[in-house]
Amino acid sequence: MSAKNAFYAQSGGVTSVINASACGVIETARQHPDKIANVYAGRNGIIGALTEELIDTSQESDEAIAALKHTPSGAFGSCRFKLKSLEDNKREYERLIEIFKAHNIGYFFYNGGGDSADTCFKVSQLSEKMGFPVQAIHIPKTVDNDLPITDNCPGFGSVAKYIAVSTLEASYDVRSMAKTSTKIFVIEVMGRHAGWIAAAGALVEDYGIPVVTLFPEVEFDQEKFLAAVDAKVKEHGYCTIVVSEGAHWPDGTFLAEQGTRDSFGHAQLGGAAPVVANMIKDALGYKFHWAVADYLQRAARHLASGSDVEQAYALGKAGVEKALEGKNSIMPTVVRESSSPYKWSIGEAPLSEVANVEKMMPMEYISEDGFGITDGCKEYLYPLIKGESYPPYDDNGMPDYVTLKLAGVERKLEDFEL
Amino acid sequence: MSAKNAFYAQSGGVTSVINASACGVIETARQHPDKIANVYAGRNGIIGALTEELIDTSQESDEAIAALKHTPSGAFGSCRFKLKSLEDNKREYERLIEIFKAHNIGYFFYNGGGDSADTCFKVSQLSEKMGFPVQAIHIPKTVDNDLPITDNCPGFGSVAKYIAVSTLEASYDVRSMAKTSTKIFVIEVMGRHAGWIAAAGALVEDYGIPVVTLFPEVEFDQEKFLAAVDAKVKEHGYCTIVVSEGAHWPDGTFLAEQGTRDSFGHAQLGGAAPVVANMIKDALGYKFHWAVADYLQRAARHLASGSDVEQAYALGKAGVEKALEGKNSIMPTVVRESSSPYKWSIGEAPLSEVANVEKMMPMEYISEDGFGITDGCKEYLYPLIKGESYPPYDDNGMPDYVTLKLAGVERKLEDFEL
Repeated sequence: MSAKNAFYAQSGGVTSVINASACGVIETARQHPDKIANVYAGRNGIIGALTEELIDTSQESDEAIAALKHTPSGAFGSCRFKLKSLEDNKREYERLIEIFKAHNIGYFFYNGGGDSADTCFKVSQLSEKMGFPVQAIHIPKTVDNDLPITDNCPGFGSVAKYIAVSTLEASYDVRSMAKTSTKIFVIEVMGRHAGWIAAAGALVEDYGIPVVTLFPEVEFDQEKFLAAVDAKVKEHGYCTIVVSEGAHWPDGTFLAEQGTRDSFGHAQLGGAAPVVANMIKDALGYKFHWAVADYLQRAARHLASGSDVEQAYALGKAGVEKALEGKNSIMPTVVRESSSPYKWSIGEAPLSEVANVEKMMPMEYISEDGFGITDGCKEYLYPLIKGESYPPYDDNGMPDYVTLKLAGVERKLEDFEL
Repeated sequence: MSAKNAFYAQSGGVTSVINASACGVIETARQHPDKIANVYAGRNGIIGALTEELIDTSQESDEAIAALKHTPSGAFGSCRFKLKSLEDNKREYERLIEIFKAHNIGYFFYNGGGDSADTCFKVSQLSEKMGFPVQAIHIPKTVDNDLPITDNCPGFGSVAKYIAVSTLEASYDVRSMAKTSTKIFVIEVMGRHAGWIAAAGALVEDYGIPVVTLFPEVEFDQEKFLAAVDAKVKEHGYCTIVVSEGAHWPDGTFLAEQGTRDSFGHAQLGGAAPVVANMIKDALGYKFHWAVADYLQRAARHLASGSDVEQAYALGKAGVEKALEGKNSIMPTVVRESSSPYKWSIGEAPLSEVANVEKMMPMEYISEDGFGITDGCKEYLYPLIKGESYPPYDDNGMPDYVTLKLAGVERKLEDFEL
């Protein structure tokens, strides 16, 4: 079998470790030049394949590729672009196969969440049918931690670590000042549908911090919430609130959508944190501060979890190795062997069982009152935030993140309208 | 001279390195038991002196005191409590002296910003007059970087590093996604009166990021601002905006106060970041994300600046050493010997020249268009964010921050009404 090229693309919201997976893919591919001639990357994700904007990763030095392991964001560009169903838009899938054919691509590594697993699955099916079989491997990535079968998803552990540490630090700050100043600190975290990230904030309870957490899984009960906060302030002098962006009222309205309007009367989505903070101020009178971490949390490579970086790299590497073993239509997974001591290995899942399946946070991970997490949840979370993996810093004191050359591959096909 | 006790208190908003100064004070005092019998700390700052709630630091182990160097927040509690002028409230100053007398306190180390420098100055004057002379030394601390004479203030360098790194990371994130998604990222930073922290965010320009910065020093010009943002997006595909909480309209109204009202019609102070983001969306149509770092920035010991930690410790140590040399009514300072390579030494300033003097950011540090910083500013800033100084982490993956025992000293005086 003569060497074929590989195609790699990043999909959806980026993370602080998706480039570590890219590093795992490219470094491993470079060790097998007899089987993988070159890795082409999609410029801005799968769109780069459809428009034939391929990046020639062979133009990047070994040092630059190695530096991906400590560089946050998506080095090749990513996109929020879901291919429609095969029935609705077969031409997109056919275009992909044409591109693969034109560029002698035999391996498709798609690095993303649920949507990309689905695309990856369809590509493997269709390419077979169209007589140009491509080995399609999905490399998991999502801060939402919602892919099935795998114990956890690369990207999540680092966000969890960032939120747990930041919540602890800010809580220490409030504790210092509570006697005469701020008594309430509200931090808003990502997770529109699942409370995984909020749960990481709730870990600070183990470190002596009075914390009330608002999960998307639990309908917001204002009276109960205010009572819980007030009780903590009365006991400890202060209270930290972790609110998921997905926290919502019983009718499904997000807390962030509380009818806030600017001076022109335009509805303004101002974040859940200020809404919750003002609610406490109005009802209980406590002075507050609030933070919205937003992209800071998923980009914070400076505080990545050691476990997460290692797994992100290992899953990229495993993707290539499994492809070289002849595997197709699968996703390498993290298998938890034990939590304490933390041991994990690499497994695999068929994409037919991954595509269109969303893993929710188990309700037994949320404490009975709905405002905290259980021991089972803590046992699950701690290993994922374990270990530090710092980037190098330059002489200025700034992290030494790499920006790639991103040289294009010569085009061979006609233009394609997206 | 027989040994006297020392009194140490933390004042105002805490930082990620104020405890490093406390560590410098206490460790140095412990090396001189012949002169300093014990260090008493004020519980919740100067209030703890007035109410005679003194903390006996001799009850804390050497290990616990050493751990202060890597623990953010104010370990003894701080307060926002400004003593009134001598004329308006002499009884507070007299009470302080009584407390010092009752507990044989001959040294007063006050760790804070402008207000505490003023208090420290008055205590040294009054104690002399009252016949119980106390050596009053002010240890500088403020993320606002607004104390005079000293080259910089401990606390600022670490916030600057956090904001510079976080802005870079989030900008990389946006750059990855801009093709099909978010094109605008707005980060709001502290600094109601001075743009020092915003200037640190502007450093990312050196790292290839298109950034527009809004300083409190420059009146907001909406038209010019939108044009600057639009030009960056057209050239680079995305734009990062760093907005100081103190950014304001020509009439002095903060951007954060743009008449935002909740569903009940209450005015809501929602942060400058969402106001700026929505303004861009309304005028230019670009998809945005925004973050408000709030306390995360000043509590982020996990990403402290090496220079800052070292200086915070050194200034605490120097405070004690200068007291032992017989100095009074002074503040140890950082003297910059050279920027490149960075060299600094410890100097001192008389409190008469520190009290009630606010150092502003020089206007020549802001670029001509008002949206960026000059080379001179960069030369000033980089040394302050240089070096990393990581805390240790526990087996869970959480930082090993210390919580002290905070044992009280037996009271000797009557109650005092604040």
